[in-house]
Amino acid sequence: MSMDGVRVGQGFDAHRFASPGSGRELWLAGLEWPGQGEGVEGDSDGDVAVHALIDALLSAAGLGDIGGLFGVGKSSQGAGQHGIPMLERTVAHVRANGFEPQSASVVIIGNRPKIGPHRAQAQESLSRAAGCPVTVTATTTDGMGFTGAGEGIAAIANALVLMRSDR
Amino acid sequence: MSMDGVRVGQGFDAHRFASPGSGRELWLAGLEWPGQGEGVEGDSDGDVAVHALIDALLSAAGLGDIGGLFGVGKSSQGAGQHGIPMLERTVAHVRANGFEPQSASVVIIGNRPKIGPHRAQAQESLSRAAGCPVTVTATTTDGMGFTGAGEGIAAIANALVLMRSDR
Amino acid sequence: MSMDGVRVGQGFDAHRFASPGSGRELWLAGLEWPGQGEGVEGDSDGDVAVHALIDALLSAAGLGDIGGLFGVGKSSQGAGQHGIPMLERTVAHVRANGFEPQSASVVIIGNRPKIGPHRAQAQESLSRAAGCPVTVTATTTDGMGFTGAGEGIAAIANALVLMRSDR
Ligand SMILES: [Zn+2]
Ligand SMILES: [Zn+2]
Ligand SMILES: [Zn+2]
Repeated sequence: MSMDGVRVGQGFDAHRFASPGSGRELWLAGLEWPGQGEGVEGDSDGDVAVHALIDALLSAAGLGDIGGLFGVGKSSQGAGQHGIPMLERTVAHVRANGFEPQSASVVIIGNRPKIGPHRAQAQESLSRAAGCPVTVTATTTDGMGFTGAGEGIAAIANALVLMRSDR
Repeated sequence: MSMDGVRVGQGFDAHRFASPGSGRELWLAGLEWPGQGEGVEGDSDGDVAVHALIDALLSAAGLGDIGGLFGVGKSSQGAGQHGIPMLERTVAHVRANGFEPQSASVVIIGNRPKIGPHRAQAQESLSRAAGCPVTVTATTTDGMGFTGAGEGIAAIANALVLMRSDR
Repeated sequence: MSMDGVRVGQGFDAHRFASPGSGRELWLAGLEWPGQGEGVEGDSDGDVAVHALIDALLSAAGLGDIGGLFGVGKSSQGAGQHGIPMLERTVAHVRANGFEPQSASVVIIGNRPKIGPHRAQAQESLSRAAGCPVTVTATTTDGMGFTGAGEGIAAIANALVLMRSDR
């Protein structure tokens, strides 16, 4: 495998928390986080970590972005879907186009949920779905901006993919 | 090419949209986007995607940042320049210092313009200017923060460069 | 060294500036910046650039994040510590787990301090501590958002690490 086939991708996503009492489940990094407050608005489960990872992988492979692969809005193929099956479909698409995911990482920016206690579980299921090591970190913005005000949650991801030499 | 010569860079940029009626053209990712509202303020054309890519390439190569290469303000060499010639000059500088751009990616964060319809064209002209694959994704912040309020537009980029072995 | 052992990591951090008159020293990118206004709040010295780099390195190596390595709060091992010794300890931990830092880059987002005049010095001390080239760029958000309002400062970092083949 030569360096000539290495590609880097960048991803970002942000979603607004649903109103208290909406009963939305909180899904993030491929897991549900019960007892950590309302989930986010949106047609999919609003998993910013997975969505940012998907964009990082798709952009690394030059395959557009999550809106192009899954569509946008209530009729999109992402509507009602959780992160892990979306990530699995993304990786199948990346591979079908001659690239192999090599490594990916995502930072979650928000006041909740507390990631640490379930980081290992999240990383394990994301890595299995991606077919490469995927790591998760989390931080806050010290009460500043929309994430600090608790309005919503954001994620920044990056990824490396390798072009398969058999193409 | 050994892995020893691989370097990664990170870039970020944000600019404020000009007031409606200012007549500023909207330039982004190396293209003009007519009919998509006012452009951004600034001395250059305010192309956040290209500026973030330039910083990602310069930082990967250890060559400072866009302010150092082009100067700052109305008398800067970036003043009045569009993104593609600035990116071409950046890549010439990176190469003159013994590095070769390998791959780069940028996420555009803002309410407008809609990137999808011209993504392929943008990626093609950015890739030609950079001498390596450059990909573009776009997302919003769900009405939150300065990008969600439509105040401005931001971009996060990353890049890989390779040290040439003939040095 | 094959590409199979390359890992990418992403880091982010943000801290609030302390109130004028608090007498907090401003530390950033491993340096003190005298005469550039108040420092930031927090239990450590609040060096967002180093903290984002630490998270980028730890996530690349799959070793959790800065809170896991140093703890959180006044009793944490990061409390009162400056960035360079924290970065050195991070790199020792990364190496003890079989990875070698290869390259890292951080963008500082904020109104102050002006990075340019001390960029070379910052990069030199960060690179020495990290055992690989580390580069620093800086930008503003054009008066927008919490960084533009001067409330605080943020940083986005990425890093590459290599798995040592002798493991
Ligand atoms: Zn999303
Ligand atoms: Zn700019
Ligand atoms: Zn911090």
